[in-house]
Amino acid sequence: MCRADGEPALFCCPFSGVFWLWGKTEMRLGEMGEAGLIQAVFTRLAGGPDVVRGVGEDAAVLDLGGERLVLFTVDTLVEDVHFRRVYTSFCDLGFKALAVNLSDIAAMGGRPTHAVVSLAVPADTTVDDVQALYVGFREAAADYGVSLVGGDTVRHPRGIVVTVAMLGLVERDRVLYRDGAAPGDLFYVTGNLGASAAGLYLFQNPGLNCPVGVARRLKEAHLRPRPRVAAGMALAASGAVTAAEDISDGLAASLTHICTASGVGCRLDAASLPVSPDALELGRLVGKDPLDWVLSGGEDYELLFAVRAQAAGELGSRLAAAGQSLIRIGEALVPGEGLWIEDAESGRRVLAPTGYDAFR
Amino acid sequence: MCRADGEPALFCCPFSGVFWLWGKTEMRLGEMGEAGLIQAVFTRLAGGPDVVRGVGEDAAVLDLGGERLVLFTVDTLVEDVHFRRVYTSFCDLGFKALAVNLSDIAAMGGRPTHAVVSLAVPADTTVDDVQALYVGFREAAADYGVSLVGGDTVRHPRGIVVTVAMLGLVERDRVLYRDGAAPGDLFYVTGNLGASAAGLYLFQNPGLNCPVGVARRLKEAHLRPRPRVAAGMALAASGAVTAAEDISDGLAASLTHICTASGVGCRLDAASLPVSPDALELGRLVGKDPLDWVLSGGEDYELLFAVRAQAAGELGSRLAAAGQSLIRIGEALVPGEGLWIEDAESGRRVLAPTGYDAFR
Repeated sequence: MCRADGEPALFCCPFSGVFWLWGKTEMRLGEMGEAGLIQAVFTRLAGGPDVVRGVGEDAAVLDLGGERLVLFTVDTLVEDVHFRRVYTSFCDLGFKALAVNLSDIAAMGGRPTHAVVSLAVPADTTVDDVQALYVGFREAAADYGVSLVGGDTVRHPRGIVVTVAMLGLVERDRVLYRDGAAPGDLFYVTGNLGASAAGLYLFQNPGLNCPVGVARRLKEAHLRPRPRVAAGMALAASGAVTAAEDISDGLAASLTHICTASGVGCRLDAASLPVSPDALELGRLVGKDPLDWVLSGGEDYELLFAVRAQAAGELGSRLAAAGQSLIRIGEALVPGEGLWIEDAESGRRVLAPTGYDAFR
Repeated sequence: MCRADGEPALFCCPFSGVFWLWGKTEMRLGEMGEAGLIQAVFTRLAGGPDVVRGVGEDAAVLDLGGERLVLFTVDTLVEDVHFRRVYTSFCDLGFKALAVNLSDIAAMGGRPTHAVVSLAVPADTTVDDVQALYVGFREAAADYGVSLVGGDTVRHPRGIVVTVAMLGLVERDRVLYRDGAAPGDLFYVTGNLGASAAGLYLFQNPGLNCPVGVARRLKEAHLRPRPRVAAGMALAASGAVTAAEDISDGLAASLTHICTASGVGCRLDAASLPVSPDALELGRLVGKDPLDWVLSGGEDYELLFAVRAQAAGELGSRLAAAGQSLIRIGEALVPGEGLWIEDAESGRRVLAPTGYDAFR
């Protein structure tokens, strides 16, 4: 019944990546990975006249005729893939499902405004559980000034799937994209990194003898991320930021996205990376290098961004005045230089984009 | 870590329905059903100043500062709940996932503009399968002038979940709601009913000896619904429609929604119901009353709407000129009269809202 059945010519039209894949028809997502899938299917989706940017950013940018542009994003959390019930309450799940979308809007410099929610839950879920989920949604919505305006709740035979779609507004000439970094720009992040991944490590290794306060803060960082919406809006207002992304899959992955989209290399200064003090302490306790949590752990939901070198000083005082952190971690290089991380002991090594992949 | 843990006072704030449920904390969704859940959790979500209507309609209605209002909706299809792989190709699944959202926008009188997609699929899904899904998305998007602007693809350990969120635009004073029907208004639908449910019956009973053409059309009605976007826009432009909804869970359920929201009763004329001729033929073949498919089957995605009696004539010629059907099926009564269906043989009987319930 599909019009494309047995009609490869039609099948090719929607995505220009199809020809490249033509000989690999049985390749599975587990072999290809998420990045390959995005390359093959998503990056070339056509836009309309009112689509300022489509796929390839943290959120789509639309012109719906108002004074500001509209941001539109969607994110899904799946049980036993993104979270486990054993350490995630329904309330925390609701909060986090909204938070990951808030972070996408923050990364574009926008103000989040409205969200709709789709829940797929087993029929034996209690009404209390669904209400606790909504308590979490409402807490995040209230904290960030978002209106929850609709939802769809459906039965799922096996496990919980939470999808949130969110809208935001952003000034027309102030949208933060990934692709504007130039050689010489400086890279910054908005806060400490590695705590969320260290918190996950604690959940996965429940017998560890970790100080109570450290464990509590690390677990909270994993369950209750605080998206940097105010910082994103301040960065957008500054006009000095050339590229930005939220750090959802580890610093190395976000840096790779920005450098690839912008066509630049980069050098990270390992000593300047703001490793969470609690992650440092847990690393010492368990003999793990917390830098792995920073680079590849993910779910920190801080912002990574590039700034023109001459504008960095002014931006620093502007953000400090707003109580926002601004931590310099490296600089953009000319394209041929590749992506490096550097420290006094080990010298230079290649930075591999080793973040979380949904299909690997 | 949830702020509401052990704090019933906080737990009550977000939803005023909570107190009503206080003694039933272990009630499961399977016992309560979808309507009860909506009543308990969703109907009282607070809006902001830019929320014209929130939960309780087919789509939320937002004021984002443009000339037109923005419609925002989300819908999810779950494997083995809303579809089965044995009769649903990936391409048809993509088409239908977009179609159910298009129908929500149509029911509000809007023009659908942008969609984002979230897929949760097992890691052994082939790249071809995901591309076929996107072929279906693109076909529906192209047919209805919608831009696909983003997506999230995640792994799911068990089965496929497709969520689509969609935006639409509608003239400020022309939005179609559910709650404006008044006694004396006439009820109409935009086309034949029952074919989708009859098609599902064929899929569920594959050995039946049904004429090829009939079977093909019924199955296509189930897999490839044609949302009435042009009709919805024409109805909105007319200014004569007092209430509208799409028929996604059977005519009885949609009629109950409109009558409850509007505070009216209704009388349906059974003889005037436009039963699909193919559903009639299948009903004769298998000894089923096709009226059950019409009233309780669901997924027809036609529009049900109420019109002021004195405006009905003009609306009919206006829609006929646009090639749109307009089939009168009954009238709105004063509230105390209840909901009835009537025919010459059996007389009056109560119309029960027996449509599809996601949790029963």
